[in-house]
Amino acid sequence: MPKGTERITGNDRRFMRLAIGLAKKGVGKTSPNPAVGAVIVKDGRVVSKGWHKKAGGAHAEASALSKKTLNAGGYSPLAGAALYVTLEPCRHYGNTPPCTEAIIRAGIKRVFLGTRDPNPLVSGKGIKALKRAGIEVVGGVLERECRGLNPAFNKFIVSKMPHVTLKLAATLDGKIATSKGESRWITGVASRRYVHRLRAITDAVITSGKTVISDDPELTVRHAHGLNPMRVVLDSAFKTPLDSKVFRRYPGDRDGRLPMVFISASAAKKKIEKAKGLGINVAAATKAVGGSGVDLKSVLKTLGNMGVTSVMVEGGGVLTASFLKDRLVDRLFWFVSPKILGADAAASVGELKIKKLGAAIEIKNIKVKKIGNDVLIEGEF
Amino acid sequence: MPKGTERITGNDRRFMRLAIGLAKKGVGKTSPNPAVGAVIVKDGRVVSKGWHKKAGGAHAEASALSKKTLNAGGYSPLAGAALYVTLEPCRHYGNTPPCTEAIIRAGIKRVFLGTRDPNPLVSGKGIKALKRAGIEVVGGVLERECRGLNPAFNKFIVSKMPHVTLKLAATLDGKIATSKGESRWITGVASRRYVHRLRAITDAVITSGKTVISDDPELTVRHAHGLNPMRVVLDSAFKTPLDSKVFRRYPGDRDGRLPMVFISASAAKKKIEKAKGLGINVAAATKAVGGSGVDLKSVLKTLGNMGVTSVMVEGGGVLTASFLKDRLVDRLFWFVSPKILGADAAASVGELKIKKLGAAIEIKNIKVKKIGNDVLIEGEF
Repeated sequence: MPKGTERITGNDRRFMRLAIGLAKKGVGKTSPNPAVGAVIVKDGRVVSKGWHKKAGGAHAEASALSKKTLNAGGYSPLAGAALYVTLEPCRHYGNTPPCTEAIIRAGIKRVFLGTRDPNPLVSGKGIKALKRAGIEVVGGVLERECRGLNPAFNKFIVSKMPHVTLKLAATLDGKIATSKGESRWITGVASRRYVHRLRAITDAVITSGKTVISDDPELTVRHAHGLNPMRVVLDSAFKTPLDSKVFRRYPGDRDGRLPMVFISASAAKKKIEKAKGLGINVAAATKAVGGSGVDLKSVLKTLGNMGVTSVMVEGGGVLTASFLKDRLVDRLFWFVSPKILGADAAASVGELKIKKLGAAIEIKNIKVKKIGNDVLIEGEF
Repeated sequence: MPKGTERITGNDRRFMRLAIGLAKKGVGKTSPNPAVGAVIVKDGRVVSKGWHKKAGGAHAEASALSKKTLNAGGYSPLAGAALYVTLEPCRHYGNTPPCTEAIIRAGIKRVFLGTRDPNPLVSGKGIKALKRAGIEVVGGVLERECRGLNPAFNKFIVSKMPHVTLKLAATLDGKIATSKGESRWITGVASRRYVHRLRAITDAVITSGKTVISDDPELTVRHAHGLNPMRVVLDSAFKTPLDSKVFRRYPGDRDGRLPMVFISASAAKKKIEKAKGLGINVAAATKAVGGSGVDLKSVLKTLGNMGVTSVMVEGGGVLTASFLKDRLVDRLFWFVSPKILGADAAASVGELKIKKLGAAIEIKNIKVKKIGNDVLIEGEF
């Protein structure tokens, strides 16, 4: 990719920032596609804007172009203009025609890119097509920010595995419930609202049968705008009651996805039949090696094959420990409530059998902010 | 106290902020006295500044006044000036003559105060003396900031009990060591430096015999400027080895205070004699009701009677839990390292037997900041 950082001006970054802002409008709505924003500039002024609104809809750059070129006949009002787009334009036929062709047809003279297509199979092909048509291409404009728009897409497109976010809400001393199991609410209303916003931009939420049995959570989006993630319950012995709230269907369910439960072979046949009749997607899972639960990697693989690009784990200490032990977590949202419950309360993370400090699980690139009266520590693995 | 907030201008706050900055130079050096700063303004310009440097030395306002009135004979170059002082001036004879007299003698016309003397026995008397002399007194200028300069003094002067800071360094999941006891280091070098700075402004550090036996810490100030706090070990059965680092004497020990150990009657007589011979202050303590350790309140009372105005608790989970259970902690510094160790690692806070969330120990007025790669959550009880 032509880096050409020396050719990038403050104005270029300003226009790209505008494109990033447009892309953000699509975050959480475009899965399995990435969120993308585009801005067209002519004679130093923004003449058109576009963003990818949802999977199946127009791509960002196509949308920005069409607003000006539609019904323009043979003449293109965008001839000589510059295009700023957060992601490399596609040059293949999917639900929509290739964006590279539309760009060339419109007479765009220069294209500024945030980041290449993360898919190694197509990465660079869009750039090549544009250059072949004589268009100047400048890459790497606010690259980190542009790539950060789509963590789930970036992982999924190369691995077919969903991007995994771990969410926890614990006291300062790392407890998620009292010794009697009271867990509502550890954190305040602002943190809970934040979690609902996270759910709204995630394809699926994974929890354990144990959590469903003790808390009966809905795991839907109620205190924020957006669609409900698919609910996934990991329950080897299928002990979760079928009338649990996670198994219900709600009007805001994303893509009409059925709630799903992963069980192992030992579960009762009769309950399985009944669950299927109620519209619950029952899937057989491999048993975890040396554990009592299901194998998490195979669960993620199955979800990936279903087109689930992102999941958020919202379970108890045991499920959290299993995901961490298997090193399957990409990103962490840890909400700290300024409370202390003591050693006899319920642990946020189950046993990990770590003997040396050097073997502790480390979280990188942490960011911290106050959310109401709580503290959010965000990081990556 | 005359509130008179309506008479306080932006300039007044600016001069008081200057006085607060001067006071801060004394923080940690003035115990058992408060840190105080003073600024004298004439014709809109700062003409003199002073601060209390150490117990026994000149008070802030006396210092600021003397710089201009010394050797001025009968004429006072400060006649008609305004004095900004963070704490109400004293009007009693202690190590130094009353500040109110010096203020009156210098011909100061207006006095702006941050906060009253927190000691109810003398509070308001300084103000009264100034007013009687015809000086205009305006109180409450940046009151919260001025009071915040001396949390230990404010508590000690009214209760004779030291101000208690609890310091913890734990992983995200609230662990302070691995299951094998490895605890060095949970947090990074920046956090440890911060703790040394806290030690330098604290009269004494309290730890448990258990922590001394397992970690053999020095509990001195090495990674910051300042004097070592007195080391206090709580060790009912007196199991701590006498050659432990906390019991040594260091050149930077504050006021030449001896290291101290609180034991209960059951401890071995011979070891006690030997300890005394080594210059360790051995004190008998009441046994805690229903516990195996010493009674913490009586320990704090003994320290208070010795003139210790502030302590920092740096122990393990059991000592921390005892202080919290007895509701003896005033302020918290909780360092969070972005690591996870799991439920089988060592707890930061021992058992508290809290059954309901409503009974959780809550931390108020929390502030949060990144310290190196760690997060510091600071709060009050």
